[in-house]
Amino acid sequence: MNDDELEIRELIDGWLRAIRAHDLEGVVAGHSDDIVMFDVPPPEDGARGIDAYSATWPPFLEWLASGAVFDAVAVEVFAGGGDFAYAHALLRCGTPERLAAEPDRRLRLTLGLRREDGRWLVAHEHHSFTAQG
Amino acid sequence: MNDDELEIRELIDGWLRAIRAHDLEGVVAGHSDDIVMFDVPPPEDGARGIDAYSATWPPFLEWLASGAVFDAVAVEVFAGGGDFAYAHALLRCGTPERLAAEPDRRLRLTLGLRREDGRWLVAHEHHSFTAQG
Repeated sequence: MNDDELEIRELIDGWLRAIRAHDLEGVVAGHSDDIVMFDVPPPEDGARGIDAYSATWPPFLEWLASGAVFDAVAVEVFAGGGDFAYAHALLRCGTPERLAAEPDRRLRLTLGLRREDGRWLVAHEHHSFTAQG
Repeated sequence: MNDDELEIRELIDGWLRAIRAHDLEGVVAGHSDDIVMFDVPPPEDGARGIDAYSATWPPFLEWLASGAVFDAVAVEVFAGGGDFAYAHALLRCGTPERLAAEPDRRLRLTLGLRREDGRWLVAHEHHSFTAQG
Protein backbone atom coordinates (compact mmCIF):
# COMPACT_ATOMS: atom_id res chain seq x y z
CA MET A 1 0.00 0.00 0.00
CA ASN A 2 1.51 3.37 -1.00
CA ASP A 3 1.55 6.51 1.20
CA ASP A 4 -1.41 8.09 -0.61
CA GLU A 5 -3.55 4.98 -0.14
CA LEU A 6 -2.56 4.87 3.54
CA GLU A 7 -3.42 8.52 4.10
CA ILE A 8 -6.77 8.16 2.31
CA ARG A 9 -7.64 5.01 4.29
CA GLU A 10 -6.95 6.95 7.51
CA LEU A 11 -9.16 9.79 6.24
CA ILE A 12 -12.02 7.38 5.47
CA ASP A 13 -11.58 5.51 8.78
CA GLY A 14 -11.72 8.83 10.67
CA TRP A 15 -14.88 9.84 8.79
CA LEU A 16 -16.55 6.48 9.60
CA ARG A 17 -15.53 6.81 13.27
CA ALA A 18 -17.00 10.34 13.40
CA ILE A 19 -20.26 9.07 11.87
CA ARG A 20 -20.50 6.26 14.44
CA ALA A 21 -19.75 8.80 17.22
CA HIS A 22 -22.48 11.16 15.85
CA ASP A 23 -19.76 13.85 15.71
CA LEU A 24 -20.82 16.33 12.99
CA GLU A 25 -17.59 18.35 13.25
CA GLY A 26 -15.54 15.18 12.67
CA VAL A 27 -17.80 14.10 9.78
CA VAL A 28 -17.07 17.27 7.77
CA ALA A 29 -13.42 17.80 8.87
CA GLY A 30 -11.87 16.01 5.88
CA HIS A 31 -14.07 17.50 3.14
CA SER A 32 -13.37 20.22 0.59
CA ASP A 33 -15.29 23.51 0.58
CA ASP A 34 -16.64 22.63 -2.88
CA ILE A 35 -17.78 19.05 -2.05
CA VAL A 36 -20.43 17.67 -4.41
CA MET A 37 -22.47 14.85 -2.86
CA PHE A 38 -24.92 12.67 -4.76
CA ASP A 39 -26.86 11.44 -1.72
CA VAL A 40 -29.55 8.73 -1.55
CA PRO A 41 -32.37 11.34 -1.27
CA PRO A 42 -32.76 14.44 -3.49
CA PRO A 43 -31.72 17.09 -4.54
CA GLU A 44 -31.38 15.55 -8.02
CA ASP A 45 -28.23 17.51 -8.84
CA GLY A 46 -26.57 16.84 -5.49
CA ALA A 47 -25.75 18.72 -2.31
CA ARG A 48 -23.13 21.29 -3.37
CA GLY A 49 -20.69 23.02 -1.04
CA ILE A 50 -19.66 22.24 2.52
CA ASP A 51 -22.69 24.04 4.06
CA ALA A 52 -25.19 22.01 2.02
CA TYR A 53 -23.19 18.83 2.75
CA SER A 54 -23.10 19.54 6.50
CA ALA A 55 -26.83 20.24 6.57
CA THR A 56 -27.64 16.72 5.35
CA TRP A 57 -26.00 15.01 8.33
CA PRO A 58 -27.92 15.94 11.53
CA PRO A 59 -31.10 13.96 10.64
CA PHE A 60 -28.96 10.98 9.55
CA LEU A 61 -26.86 11.10 12.75
CA GLU A 62 -30.11 11.20 14.79
CA TRP A 63 -31.32 8.11 12.88
CA LEU A 64 -28.05 6.34 13.74
CA ALA A 65 -28.37 7.43 17.39
CA SER A 66 -31.78 5.73 17.44
CA GLY A 67 -30.11 2.39 16.63
CA ALA A 68 -29.58 2.27 12.85
CA VAL A 69 -26.37 0.75 11.43
CA PHE A 70 -23.69 2.27 9.10
CA ASP A 71 -20.83 -0.26 8.84
CA ALA A 72 -18.30 -0.48 6.02
CA VAL A 73 -17.74 -4.08 4.91
CA ALA A 74 -15.36 -3.39 1.99
CA VAL A 75 -13.32 -0.27 1.22
CA GLU A 76 -10.99 -0.05 -1.80
CA VAL A 77 -8.71 2.96 -2.42
CA PHE A 78 -7.10 3.84 -5.77
CA ALA A 79 -4.32 6.41 -5.45
CA GLY A 80 -0.64 6.91 -6.08
CA GLY A 81 1.08 10.08 -7.24
CA GLY A 82 -0.81 13.08 -8.53
CA ASP A 83 -3.44 15.11 -6.74
CA PHE A 84 -6.56 13.04 -7.52
CA ALA A 85 -7.78 9.65 -6.31
CA TYR A 86 -10.96 7.68 -5.83
CA ALA A 87 -12.32 5.00 -3.53
CA HIS A 88 -15.36 2.76 -3.45
CA ALA A 89 -17.01 0.91 -0.60
CA LEU A 90 -19.92 -1.32 0.35
CA LEU A 91 -21.74 -0.71 3.63
CA ARG A 92 -24.40 -2.34 5.75
CA CYS A 93 -26.83 0.51 6.36
CA GLY A 94 -30.32 0.30 7.81
CA THR A 95 -32.34 -0.41 10.89
CA PRO A 96 -31.49 -3.74 12.61
CA GLU A 97 -34.93 -5.03 11.50
CA ARG A 98 -34.32 -4.22 7.84
CA LEU A 99 -30.77 -5.64 7.89
CA ALA A 100 -32.16 -8.86 9.43
CA ALA A 101 -34.79 -9.09 6.69
CA GLU A 102 -32.39 -8.18 3.83
CA PRO A 103 -28.91 -9.26 4.98
CA ASP A 104 -27.34 -8.84 1.51
CA ARG A 105 -28.59 -5.30 0.89
CA ARG A 106 -25.72 -2.81 0.58
CA LEU A 107 -25.24 0.91 0.50
CA ARG A 108 -22.78 1.61 -2.33
CA LEU A 109 -20.39 4.52 -1.83
CA THR A 110 -17.90 6.15 -4.20
CA LEU A 111 -15.52 8.91 -3.09
CA GLY A 112 -13.56 11.36 -5.27
CA LEU A 113 -10.50 12.80 -3.51
CA ARG A 114 -8.19 15.77 -4.13
CA ARG A 115 -4.87 16.70 -2.54
CA GLU A 116 -4.80 20.33 -1.40
CA ASP A 117 -1.73 21.85 0.30
CA GLY A 118 -0.34 18.35 0.72
CA ARG A 119 -3.46 16.96 2.41
CA TRP A 120 -6.08 14.61 0.92
CA LEU A 121 -9.69 15.82 1.09
CA VAL A 122 -12.98 14.25 0.03
CA ALA A 123 -14.32 16.43 -2.83
CA HIS A 124 -17.09 14.12 -4.07
CA GLU A 125 -19.37 11.48 -2.53
CA HIS A 126 -21.94 9.28 -4.24
CA HIS A 127 -24.23 7.18 -2.04
CA SER A 128 -26.93 4.86 -3.41
CA PHE A 129 -28.97 1.73 -2.98
CA THR A 130 -29.89 -0.48 -5.92
CA ALA A 131 -33.33 0.01 -7.46
CA GLN A 132 -35.48 -2.05 -9.80
CA GLY A 133 -36.86 -0.84 -13.10
CA MET B 1 -8.03 22.19 -19.08
CA ASN B 2 -4.93 19.98 -18.72
CA ASP B 3 -4.01 17.06 -21.03
CA ASP B 4 -5.37 14.41 -18.64
CA GLU B 5 -8.73 16.17 -18.38
CA LEU B 6 -8.85 16.49 -22.16
CA GLU B 7 -8.05 12.82 -22.73
CA ILE B 8 -10.63 11.74 -20.14
CA ARG B 9 -13.32 14.01 -21.64
CA GLU B 10 -12.65 12.40 -25.02
CA LEU B 11 -12.92 8.95 -23.44
CA ILE B 12 -16.27 9.84 -21.83
CA ASP B 13 -17.57 11.50 -25.03
CA GLY B 14 -16.64 8.36 -27.02
CA TRP B 15 -18.41 6.16 -24.49
CA LEU B 16 -21.57 8.32 -24.65
CA ARG B 17 -21.47 8.25 -28.47
CA ALA B 18 -21.15 4.44 -28.44
CA ILE B 19 -24.12 4.19 -26.07
CA ARG B 20 -26.24 6.41 -28.32
CA ALA B 21 -25.14 4.31 -31.36
CA HIS B 22 -26.06 1.06 -29.50
CA ASP B 23 -22.48 -0.09 -30.21
CA LEU B 24 -21.56 -2.59 -27.46
CA GLU B 25 -17.94 -2.93 -28.64
CA GLY B 26 -17.50 0.83 -28.39
CA VAL B 27 -19.21 0.96 -24.98
CA VAL B 28 -16.64 -1.38 -23.39
CA ALA B 29 -13.56 -0.29 -25.40
CA GLY B 30 -12.30 2.21 -22.80
CA HIS B 31 -12.82 0.06 -19.69
CA SER B 32 -10.35 -1.88 -17.55
CA ASP B 33 -10.49 -5.68 -17.26
CA ASP B 34 -11.19 -5.29 -13.52
CA ILE B 35 -13.99 -2.70 -13.86
CA VAL B 36 -16.31 -2.52 -10.83
CA MET B 37 -19.73 -1.05 -11.66
CA PHE B 38 -22.34 -0.13 -9.06
CA ASP B 39 -25.32 -0.10 -11.43
CA VAL B 40 -28.90 1.07 -10.79
CA PRO B 41 -30.17 -2.55 -10.50
CA PRO B 42 -28.54 -5.35 -8.45
CA PRO B 43 -26.21 -7.16 -7.85
CA GLU B 44 -25.75 -5.44 -4.49
CA ASP B 45 -21.96 -5.69 -4.59
CA GLY B 46 -21.67 -4.54 -8.20
CA ALA B 47 -20.89 -6.04 -11.61
CA ARG B 48 -17.22 -7.04 -11.38
CA GLY B 49 -14.91 -7.63 -14.36
CA ILE B 50 -15.29 -6.67 -18.00
CA ASP B 51 -17.43 -9.74 -18.83
CA ALA B 52 -19.99 -8.95 -16.11
CA TYR B 53 -19.91 -5.28 -17.13
CA SER B 54 -20.45 -6.09 -20.82
CA ALA B 55 -23.34 -8.42 -19.99
CA THR B 56 -25.32 -5.57 -18.39
CA TRP B 57 -25.43 -3.51 -21.60
CA PRO B 58 -27.48 -5.39 -24.27
CA PRO B 59 -30.86 -5.03 -22.49
CA PHE B 60 -30.13 -1.35 -21.79
CA LEU B 61 -29.07 -0.69 -25.40
CA GLU B 62 -32.31 -2.37 -26.57
CA TRP B 63 -34.27 -0.08 -24.26
CA LEU B 64 -32.50 2.95 -25.79
CA ALA B 65 -33.17 1.59 -29.30
CA SER B 66 -36.88 1.54 -28.40
CA GLY B 67 -36.78 5.30 -27.80
CA ALA B 68 -35.43 5.90 -24.29
CA VAL B 69 -33.04 8.79 -23.61
CA PHE B 70 -29.48 8.82 -22.14
CA ASP B 71 -28.11 12.39 -22.45
CA ALA B 72 -25.34 13.90 -20.33
CA VAL B 73 -26.24 17.42 -19.18
CA ALA B 74 -23.17 18.08 -16.97
CA VAL B 75 -19.82 16.28 -16.94
CA GLU B 76 -16.98 17.34 -14.61
CA VAL B 77 -13.52 15.75 -14.76
CA PHE B 78 -10.91 15.90 -11.98
CA ALA B 79 -7.44 14.88 -13.14
CA GLY B 80 -3.90 16.15 -13.44
CA GLY B 81 -0.71 14.19 -12.97
CA GLY B 82 -0.61 10.75 -11.44
CA ASP B 83 -2.39 7.63 -12.63
CA PHE B 84 -5.82 8.09 -11.00
CA ALA B 85 -8.69 10.47 -11.62
CA TYR B 86 -12.44 10.73 -11.19
CA ALA B 87 -15.40 12.36 -12.91
CA HIS B 88 -19.03 12.96 -12.10
CA ALA B 89 -21.98 13.66 -14.33
CA LEU B 90 -25.73 14.27 -14.40
CA LEU B 91 -27.80 12.69 -17.16
CA ARG B 92 -31.36 12.81 -18.45
CA CYS B 93 -32.28 9.13 -18.61
CA GLY B 94 -35.72 7.61 -19.13
CA THR B 95 -38.54 7.16 -21.56
CA PRO B 96 -39.76 10.39 -23.22
CA GLU B 97 -43.01 10.03 -21.22
CA ARG B 98 -41.22 9.83 -17.89
CA LEU B 99 -38.85 12.69 -18.73
CA ALA B 100 -41.85 14.82 -19.68
CA ALA B 101 -43.56 14.00 -16.37
CA GLU B 102 -40.39 14.45 -14.25
CA PRO B 103 -38.18 16.94 -16.15
CA ASP B 104 -35.80 17.51 -13.21
CA ARG B 105 -35.08 13.81 -12.54
CA ARG B 106 -31.42 12.96 -13.08
CA LEU B 107 -29.29 9.84 -13.35
CA ARG B 108 -26.17 10.53 -11.27
CA LEU B 109 -22.92 9.01 -12.52
CA THR B 110 -19.46 8.83 -10.95
CA LEU B 111 -16.44 7.39 -12.79
CA GLY B 112 -13.11 6.25 -11.32
CA LEU B 113 -10.26 6.26 -13.87
CA ARG B 114 -6.79 4.73 -14.03
CA ARG B 115 -3.92 5.33 -16.45
CA GLU B 116 -2.49 2.07 -17.77
CA ASP B 117 0.40 1.99 -20.26
CA GLY B 118 -0.12 5.70 -20.81
CA ARG B 119 -3.84 5.43 -21.60
CA TRP B 120 -6.77 6.42 -19.36
CA LEU B 121 -9.34 3.67 -18.70
CA VAL B 122 -12.62 3.63 -16.76
CA ALA B 123 -12.05 1.26 -13.79
CA HIS B 124 -15.16 2.13 -11.76
CA GLU B 125 -18.70 3.34 -12.53
CA HIS B 126 -21.47 4.22 -10.10
CA HIS B 127 -24.94 4.91 -11.53
CA SER B 128 -27.96 5.81 -9.41
CA PHE B 129 -31.23 7.63 -9.11
CA THR B 130 -32.31 9.35 -5.91
CA ALA B 131 -34.65 7.45 -3.58
CA GLN B 132 -36.85 8.43 -0.68
CA GLY B 133 -36.60 6.92 2.80
